[in-house]
Amino acid sequence: MQIAVARLPDQHVLRENLSVPGLADAIHVAAHGNVGERSWLMPSDRLLIHYEAEVAINRPNLAIEALPADPLPTLPADVVEYLLPSRYCPVDTMHAATDDLFGGLTGGAGVLAVRDWIGGHLSYVPGASHAGTTALDTFHAREGVCRDYAHLLVTLVRGLGIPARLVSAYAPNVTPPDFHALAQVWLAGSWHLIDATGMAEPSHTAIIGVGRDAADISFLTIFGSATLNEQAVVVSLL
Amino acid sequence: MQIAVARLPDQHVLRENLSVPGLADAIHVAAHGNVGERSWLMPSDRLLIHYEAEVAINRPNLAIEALPADPLPTLPADVVEYLLPSRYCPVDTMHAATDDLFGGLTGGAGVLAVRDWIGGHLSYVPGASHAGTTALDTFHAREGVCRDYAHLLVTLVRGLGIPARLVSAYAPNVTPPDFHALAQVWLAGSWHLIDATGMAEPSHTAIIGVGRDAADISFLTIFGSATLNEQAVVVSLL
Amino acid sequence: MQIAVARLPDQHVLRENLSVPGLADAIHVAAHGNVGERSWLMPSDRLLIHYEAEVAINRPNLAIEALPADPLPTLPADVVEYLLPSRYCPVDTMHAATDDLFGGLTGGAGVLAVRDWIGGHLSYVPGASHAGTTALDTFHAREGVCRDYAHLLVTLVRGLGIPARLVSAYAPNVTPPDFHALAQVWLAGSWHLIDATGMAEPSHTAIIGVGRDAADISFLTIFGSATLNEQAVVVSLL
Amino acid sequence: MQIAVARLPDQHVLRENLSVPGLADAIHVAAHGNVGERSWLMPSDRLLIHYEAEVAINRPNLAIEALPADPLPTLPADVVEYLLPSRYCPVDTMHAATDDLFGGLTGGAGVLAVRDWIGGHLSYVPGASHAGTTALDTFHAREGVCRDYAHLLVTLVRGLGIPARLVSAYAPNVTPPDFHALAQVWLAGSWHLIDATGMAEPSHTAIIGVGRDAADISFLTIFGSATLNEQAVVVSLL
Repeated sequence: MQIAVARLPDQHVLRENLSVPGLADAIHVAAHGNVGERSWLMPSDRLLIHYEAEVAINRPNLAIEALPADPLPTLPADVVEYLLPSRYCPVDTMHAATDDLFGGLTGGAGVLAVRDWIGGHLSYVPGASHAGTTALDTFHAREGVCRDYAHLLVTLVRGLGIPARLVSAYAPNVTPPDFHALAQVWLAGSWHLIDATGMAEPSHTAIIGVGRDAADISFLTIFGSATLNEQAVVVSLL
Repeated sequence: MQIAVARLPDQHVLRENLSVPGLADAIHVAAHGNVGERSWLMPSDRLLIHYEAEVAINRPNLAIEALPADPLPTLPADVVEYLLPSRYCPVDTMHAATDDLFGGLTGGAGVLAVRDWIGGHLSYVPGASHAGTTALDTFHAREGVCRDYAHLLVTLVRGLGIPARLVSAYAPNVTPPDFHALAQVWLAGSWHLIDATGMAEPSHTAIIGVGRDAADISFLTIFGSATLNEQAVVVSLL
Repeated sequence: MQIAVARLPDQHVLRENLSVPGLADAIHVAAHGNVGERSWLMPSDRLLIHYEAEVAINRPNLAIEALPADPLPTLPADVVEYLLPSRYCPVDTMHAATDDLFGGLTGGAGVLAVRDWIGGHLSYVPGASHAGTTALDTFHAREGVCRDYAHLLVTLVRGLGIPARLVSAYAPNVTPPDFHALAQVWLAGSWHLIDATGMAEPSHTAIIGVGRDAADISFLTIFGSATLNEQAVVVSLL
Repeated sequence: MQIAVARLPDQHVLRENLSVPGLADAIHVAAHGNVGERSWLMPSDRLLIHYEAEVAINRPNLAIEALPADPLPTLPADVVEYLLPSRYCPVDTMHAATDDLFGGLTGGAGVLAVRDWIGGHLSYVPGASHAGTTALDTFHAREGVCRDYAHLLVTLVRGLGIPARLVSAYAPNVTPPDFHALAQVWLAGSWHLIDATGMAEPSHTAIIGVGRDAADISFLTIFGSATLNEQAVVVSLL
């Protein structure tokens, strides 16, 4: 399980409460890229999880258009993996199409061209995708939800030679209300949030975790079997 | 580029020479899981790489049959990612078939059951697969090369709840001679080498790098375009 | 649209009424393999279709176990295409696995071995598949609905060198009630019905249409866009 | 085996010789859509096939730009199947992208827009594709051979509501010399040849067979196993 807001320099958890009746002894391990924490839960029966937090976010909405891409050999060792293909982001398979659509573009301008292409060619359709939907599926289906938008952006941006990763988060104004998925791109020496759906602003986004793609940051990964009875997410600005 | 033998507790590089004429300033970054090193090369024209090393390996051929799987919540934080689906190892998609074939098996016995199933159902056929071939493709094609064998083993083993990752290596007796791919599985608190093709013994395997799958440990990842003119790998026991 | 019961030697339509208010002039064309009829409808707005029929079926539940497969060169010209790969039945891709599981089996015994394998390894799970699900997807997902069961049976049977095709039908005892999909296999010179789900008996099955796979016999193929508001199928024995 | 030039109103076989030493008794069956013939061969050992023909073609290079698409309900019953998805032409999966690229276009103008898009975005690369490559794979790989070009054209044209099918043929100027694959589209009541690669002119194309896609018109379909030792195709204008 990974649902708690991460401790990060630009977001501070003011108040937080995680309640899992009957499972006080959840075990925590650091999550991918050392952003956030995963908890292992071993329920025997019905599981009820309640999480509530108040978060102060101090992350400006930067203009990334002018930011340059870093030369590949200067990338930190732990950033390189975010250039490579992953489960839902088949950079290799989509490389030719990426080149055909965005060849010659790079840096922040390239990232924004990708985001604008997605905004102009995809429709936000809840239920259009399923657990196995990859960025390639979304590329030709031309529809999906936040996770699909983020996977497509990450895949195309990696194809431009820019590291990109998936981010799970809480954000207000997500319709319908749910966990949100967006992306971070590596430009000018650091990670920058970008939302292909246009729903969330960086300054209002409480990051839970990061990963290569949704396989790494699922809010709930099941080993064994389980049924989701009900789920509700409420995010509001104070 | 990732072709140099890794510095590891159980393998010592006695002598090593990497020659890349005209590119003395290749830049090194640590590779995945801090095993091995990647080099960035920026050739403008024809590139000739020569690498030669003598390695002393002190890694016994352990019997893993009796080793238990670690309970999931006790896994170190940096091992958890090797349980999850990746580019060529769609654990999620293959979960039902894994369960159908190997349900109830676990630990070293489960790993060996997977290895034996692969040995009994796959044929080693150079040229049968291509760059995009996943473990799922191999599962129904029932043929492939070392990389395909390793991907299938890694995917099925992860499906049993046991962390597994891909390993690139040099090994003698690989036919035809080439870079070799095998796997490591996490049992009883450490990584253990296992070769689904049966070609390489742990005690004769010089590890280059590790990763979630071949996307992470390709001996050469191209950004831009290049043509492979010729390649030769020679490994011998001293 | 293809929902009317076909006129066939072994099933007689005693009474039939198709009502499509405001579209009296639907145009009929023969369906695939000259079994059944398709109707073209060009609705401008909301479309309400009501179809009702009483059918006398004179089709014995034959034991196919002892029936031989016909030698390939003796197959009638219009039967050959049912040996080949089609949209949802990638015979080629699954050939190695088919051979591995059923190699050496042929004729009615081979068909029943396939049906029994499916019965023993798949779970009937409404909602588990989607419009693009192929026999290959079902082979490793190990779950699906009648259409998925039929696609898998057709694909595996073709892999044994026996022509097989998909059949849409009405049958009682289908749970939940819906259009039903099953298969026909070509043995000993004629087509024989077989239901991989075990829900429908040949003697109680009113055939609508046949085709290479679901792409050919969809009850409704949309050119343009449309939304399905509601659908109900009721089948009962008199 | 399907390699003989078809008997058609617009192409006349002046002279023809098929030699298959030791297999005088090949059995012929009509091929798909009643264009061409398939032969069943049952070799026990090494098979040597030699085919030679002289063909007079009387097929003008028509301008199809101005030809209208036929209204769907007026399509002959045996043409309707060429609108539907098939093994290598997943019309359904590519519908959204087709609509996005060519929405609003129809008839001969639509067909030519598709052909020009393919000409502008694909590279002809022998060896880039394999036996399982679909139109969808080619759509994002942006490269392939004649068969891939033809599959992509057929899929996109069907997506415009225009029947389209694959054609195997002999044509001069195919580079490298080989069997050629192109397409036929149904406009204004008849089939019209079109070559997405631009290599072959209708007036110089000797049609062998037609089908939904390559699954139907493979020059050699193997039941059992076989190895292709050598193959040569020579086509010249007299």
